[in-house]
Amino acid sequence: MPTYTAPVKDMQFLLHDVLKISQADIPGYADLDTGFTQAVLSEAARVAEQVLAPLNAVGDAEGCKLEAGVVRTPSGFRAAFDTLRQGGWMSLDAAPEYGGQGLPYLMHTAVNETFVSANMAFNMYQGLTHGAYSAILAHGTEEQKRKWLPKLVTCEWTGTMNLTEPHCGTDLGLLRTKAEPQPDGSYRITGQKIFISAGDHDMAENIVHLVLAKAPGGGEGTKGISLFIVPKFLVKEDGSLGARNAVSVGKIEHKMGIHGNATCVMNYDGATGWLLGELHKGMRAMFTMMNEARLGVALQGYAVAEAAYQNALAYAKDRLQGRAVTGAANPDGPADPLIVHPDIRRNLMEQKSFVEGARALTFWGATLIDRAHNGDAAADGLVGLLTPVLKGFQTDKGFEMAVQAQQVFGGHGYIEEWGMSQFARDARIAMIYEGANGIQALDLVGRKLAQDGGRHVIAFFEMVKAECRAHDGDERMKGFTEPLKAASRQLQQAGMFFMQNGMTNPDAALAGSYDFMHMMGHVCLGLMWTRMAKAAYAALDGGADDRDFLKAKIATGRFYMARQLPACAMHLARIESGSDPVMALPAEAF
Amino acid sequence: MPTYTAPVKDMQFLLHDVLKISQADIPGYADLDTGFTQAVLSEAARVAEQVLAPLNAVGDAEGCKLEAGVVRTPSGFRAAFDTLRQGGWMSLDAAPEYGGQGLPYLMHTAVNETFVSANMAFNMYQGLTHGAYSAILAHGTEEQKRKWLPKLVTCEWTGTMNLTEPHCGTDLGLLRTKAEPQPDGSYRITGQKIFISAGDHDMAENIVHLVLAKAPGGGEGTKGISLFIVPKFLVKEDGSLGARNAVSVGKIEHKMGIHGNATCVMNYDGATGWLLGELHKGMRAMFTMMNEARLGVALQGYAVAEAAYQNALAYAKDRLQGRAVTGAANPDGPADPLIVHPDIRRNLMEQKSFVEGARALTFWGATLIDRAHNGDAAADGLVGLLTPVLKGFQTDKGFEMAVQAQQVFGGHGYIEEWGMSQFARDARIAMIYEGANGIQALDLVGRKLAQDGGRHVIAFFEMVKAECRAHDGDERMKGFTEPLKAASRQLQQAGMFFMQNGMTNPDAALAGSYDFMHMMGHVCLGLMWTRMAKAAYAALDGGADDRDFLKAKIATGRFYMARQLPACAMHLARIESGSDPVMALPAEAF
Repeated sequence: MPTYTAPVKDMQFLLHDVLKISQADIPGYADLDTGFTQAVLSEAARVAEQVLAPLNAVGDAEGCKLEAGVVRTPSGFRAAFDTLRQGGWMSLDAAPEYGGQGLPYLMHTAVNETFVSANMAFNMYQGLTHGAYSAILAHGTEEQKRKWLPKLVTCEWTGTMNLTEPHCGTDLGLLRTKAEPQPDGSYRITGQKIFISAGDHDMAENIVHLVLAKAPGGGEGTKGISLFIVPKFLVKEDGSLGARNAVSVGKIEHKMGIHGNATCVMNYDGATGWLLGELHKGMRAMFTMMNEARLGVALQGYAVAEAAYQNALAYAKDRLQGRAVTGAANPDGPADPLIVHPDIRRNLMEQKSFVEGARALTFWGATLIDRAHNGDAAADGLVGLLTPVLKGFQTDKGFEMAVQAQQVFGGHGYIEEWGMSQFARDARIAMIYEGANGIQALDLVGRKLAQDGGRHVIAFFEMVKAECRAHDGDERMKGFTEPLKAASRQLQQAGMFFMQNGMTNPDAALAGSYDFMHMMGHVCLGLMWTRMAKAAYAALDGGADDRDFLKAKIATGRFYMARQLPACAMHLARIESGSDPVMALPAEAF
Repeated sequence: MPTYTAPVKDMQFLLHDVLKISQADIPGYADLDTGFTQAVLSEAARVAEQVLAPLNAVGDAEGCKLEAGVVRTPSGFRAAFDTLRQGGWMSLDAAPEYGGQGLPYLMHTAVNETFVSANMAFNMYQGLTHGAYSAILAHGTEEQKRKWLPKLVTCEWTGTMNLTEPHCGTDLGLLRTKAEPQPDGSYRITGQKIFISAGDHDMAENIVHLVLAKAPGGGEGTKGISLFIVPKFLVKEDGSLGARNAVSVGKIEHKMGIHGNATCVMNYDGATGWLLGELHKGMRAMFTMMNEARLGVALQGYAVAEAAYQNALAYAKDRLQGRAVTGAANPDGPADPLIVHPDIRRNLMEQKSFVEGARALTFWGATLIDRAHNGDAAADGLVGLLTPVLKGFQTDKGFEMAVQAQQVFGGHGYIEEWGMSQFARDARIAMIYEGANGIQALDLVGRKLAQDGGRHVIAFFEMVKAECRAHDGDERMKGFTEPLKAASRQLQQAGMFFMQNGMTNPDAALAGSYDFMHMMGHVCLGLMWTRMAKAAYAALDGGADDRDFLKAKIATGRFYMARQLPACAMHLARIESGSDPVMALPAEAF
C-alpha cells in the first residue's frame, strides 16, 4: 500500500527562497512569512497524509455506486469530507465576504497539491466546487452571489461543470441542451450531459450544476450558448432547501481510474435554472471556470507523479536486486538496493526533476494568477499563454512519470494491491479532461501565441533572456544558462517557422503544435530550474543550514538541463519538417 | 466495443515484396508462395476476428477466478481454445515428428500477431506453451521429448515458465526454491513462485511447469540453478494421467490488465519434478525459453498497438467535431471528422508508422530466427543483438501508441466500455515481463554490444551502410537514406562514447543504456522503412495494381523518417552528457 508525505520543505524553499513571496508586491503576500506558511502547510500535510491518503486505495477499489438514483461514495469519503469542511480547507482563498479566508490563490495551490497527491479522486469534489464558486463570483448578480456563494465556499454545497454531450465534447457549438425562458425569469433546462465529475454524491446537502445550454435567439454555433445555475434542490428565499429539481443521474461511468469520483450522465428534464452572466455569452462565463480548472488539472499532472515517485523511491531503496556494476554497495546483504543501478537512477532522476520543476512552474503560475486578480494585465496575459503549456505538458509528463514509477516495481507494479497501477490510471485522465492535450496545443499555437499582437510570448522570451543575462560570467550557473539559452533560441525558431509558414498554410503550424507545447514546457522548466539553482546557490553562499537539501536541488536541476532540454532540438526538427509528412496521406488512404 | 481486422495485405507485402521469402535461401521458405501464405493468413484472420476478438472485452471484464483450487477462465475461452486446437493453430512451426506442421517460425509469427491483436490475454496460454515446447525440444532427453512434446504441440497440455519468487525477479541468483534428488532419479521441488502466467486454468488436461530451483552442490548464485519439468498431473508410462502432483495455486493476482490470463502464485510442496538439461546449468536452458519469449513480447508491443490504432482510426473518421482549419471538409454535415485536424493526423501517423515499421522489424527478426535454426551463426548473433531492442523499444512504443489511440477518443477513451483503456492496460505489462525494459537496455549495452568482439553490432552497421549505398543517387529515396545515415552515425557515435568511457567508468555506459536502446530501435525502424520504400517503389515501377496502398506505404515511411528519427540526436545528447548528471546525487540524498 503506497504512502505519502507532503513535500513541505520543498514548498517552503519555493515560496521563500525562489519566489520570495513575502517581499513580492502582491496584495496579501506580505503576511505570508515563513512561520505562517509552515503552519498552514504542516497542518495541510497532516490532513493529506492521515485523512486523505489512506482512502486513496479504498476509493479505487470500491468506486462509486448509483443506488435508487443517488450516488454513494466509497467508505470513509463522507467523514473525510466533513473533516476538511470543519477544518476550513475548502475556503482558503475564497472571499471573506462570503465566508472565505481570503488567502492568496498561491496558498490554495500549495495546499491543493498535497490533497491531490494524497487522493486525486476525492479532491475533485471540492476542486469543481471551487470552479463553480469562481464562475459565480465573476459573473453572478449580487443576489446570486449572496444566495450561492456562502454554501459553496464551505462546501456544504458542491459544484459541477456541465459542458459535454454525447455527440459533442470539444466542439460545443454542436450542443443541444435547450433553455426555455419562463415568465418568472427562470429557464426550463432540457437535455443530457455526460462526463459530469462529482455530478452526484452523498457528501453535500445540495449540488449546484453550472450548465451550458442554448436559449432562443442566440444564433448558430457557440454564439447561442448561455450558462445556467441549476441546483439539485431548489433553494427557498430563506436559504433552506426546497423541492427536488428535475435533474437526475442517468448512470455512473465505469472508468480506467479516479474511481472514487462519480462521473455521471446527467439528465435535465425541464429542470429549473437561472441565467449566470449575460445571455448568449455563456462561453465567456464558462471560460472563467475552465481556465482555473485547467491550472487545477496541470497541478494534478505533477501531484500524482509526486506521490508515485515517493513510493518508487522507497521501493528502489528497499528492494535488494543485483549488484552495483562499480562494486557491491551493500556487501553484507544478499544484493544491493535497486537505486545503485544507473538506469534506475536515471528513471528516478527523471521523475524527481520533473516533479520539482513542475511544482515551481505551478507555484509561479499561481503568483501570476494572484497578480492578475489584482488587475495586472501583463500577468493575466502571461498566465493565459502559459495555461495550455502547464495543462498539456505537465499532464503528459505526469502520466509518463507515474508509468515510470510503476516500472521501478517490476512485476509488482502491475499488481493492483501495490497501488502503482492506480497512480498511472488516475493520472491518465488529466491528459484528457478540461480540453484534451491536443486542444491545449491548438489553443497555444492557434490562439495564444498571436494574442494581443504576440505581446505575451515576446514578454516570455524577454524574461528568459533576462534570466540568462543575470548570470553572465557566473561559471557555476553555466550548466543552467547555456542549455536554457539554446532551448529558448530553438523555441523562438519554431515560433518563426509558424509565422513564416502558418499564414499561407495553417496546417504547417498546427502539425507542429503538439511539439511546440512540449518544447515550451521544457523551456519553462529550464527557466524554473535556473531560478531554483540561483536560489540554492544564494542560500549556500549565505551559510544556510540545510546544505544537503540545497546541493540536491542543484544536482537535480543539472540533470534536467543536461538530460531533458535536448528534447527541444528534436521537437524543432519535427516542427521544421512542416505539415507535408503529417498531411501527405489523404484521409481516405489511411 | 472495439473491432479488429487482420492486416493480411500488409503482411503479404512484407513477406513477398520486402522480404521476398520464397526466393530466400532458408530451408522451407521456397514453399511459402503468395497463394499459400494468403490462404494461411486469411484463415488465421477469420479465427482472430471472429473467435478471439469478441472475447477480448469479456476476458477483461470477467477475469479469472480461483474456485476450489482450480482457475476458471472467462466465458467462451474454453470453447475458443478448443477451436484453435482443432484448427491446428498451436502447432504451426512445431516439429513434424512431434505432431507439428513444420512451417517456418516466420509463419508462426505472422499468425501469432493476428491472435495477439485480437486477444492478447487469451493468446498467452498458447504462447507460454510454445516456450515450454522449445525448451524441452532443445534440452530434453529423447524420452522427455517423446513424453511431453506431442501433447504440448497440440496444446492438449499447456506450459508455464516459473522463475520469479517474492524476493527475486531479475536477480535469480537469490532464488530459494529447492530441488532434492530422489533415489528414482526424480527431484522433490519445494518453494513458492509468483507471477506465473497461465499457471492454472480449465482449458487443458494437464499443465507442464518448467521450474527453476536449486539442487545441492551447485554453489552460490545463478550457478546453482537447475531447470525442472513439474507437471500438474503425473503422467503414467502409457501416457495417461496419474496422480495430482504437489503443486497448487496460492492465489490469482489482481492486475492492471490482461485479466483474461491467470497470473498465479504457485506453491510447490515437495512436488515431483525431472531435471531438464544439465544439472546446475538451468539458466542456460531457461534462456532458450526466454529469448523466444522476449521476441513474443516484442510482438505483443506492436500487435496491441495495431488493434488500438484500427479503432482510433475508425473513430477519427467517424466522429464529427470542429472544422478543418483549411476549410470545411464535410460542409453538408454539422462538423468535420476528427481526422481533418493536423494534430489528430500527427497522432494517427505516429501510430501507423510505428506499427508497420515494427511489424517489418519483427518479421525480419523471424527470418533471422529461421536462419539461426538452420545453423547460421551470423543470423543467430544478429538476432541476439536485436532481441533486447525489439523487446524494449517495441513494448515502450507499443504502450505509448495504445495511449495515443486512447487519446483520439477524448473522454470516451477513459470509459471502459469503449475498450481503449483495455488496450493501454494490457499493453503496459509487455514493458515489464520477460525482463523489464531497463534490463533489456542493460543486456544490450552491458552484454550484447561487445559480444563476440563486437562482431554483430559491426555487421549491423555495415548492413545499414550497404542499404544506404544501394540507393546512392536515387532522388526518390533521399528522404529515407539521408535520415537513416544520420541516425546510424549518431548511434555509432553513442557506441564510441560507451567504448571510450565505459571501460574506466561502467556507469557512463549504463546511464545511457536506455537511450541507446531507443536510438537503436529508431535506426532499426528507419532501416525497415527504407527497405519498405524500396519495395513499394519497385512495385509501382513494375506496374502493380494497388497503387494507393503502395503510395500510402511511402508516405507513411516519409513521416517516420522526418518526424521520428530526429529522436536519435536527442538520445545521443543525453548519452554524451555522461553518468555525472545521473549519478551525482548520492542515494541517501534523494
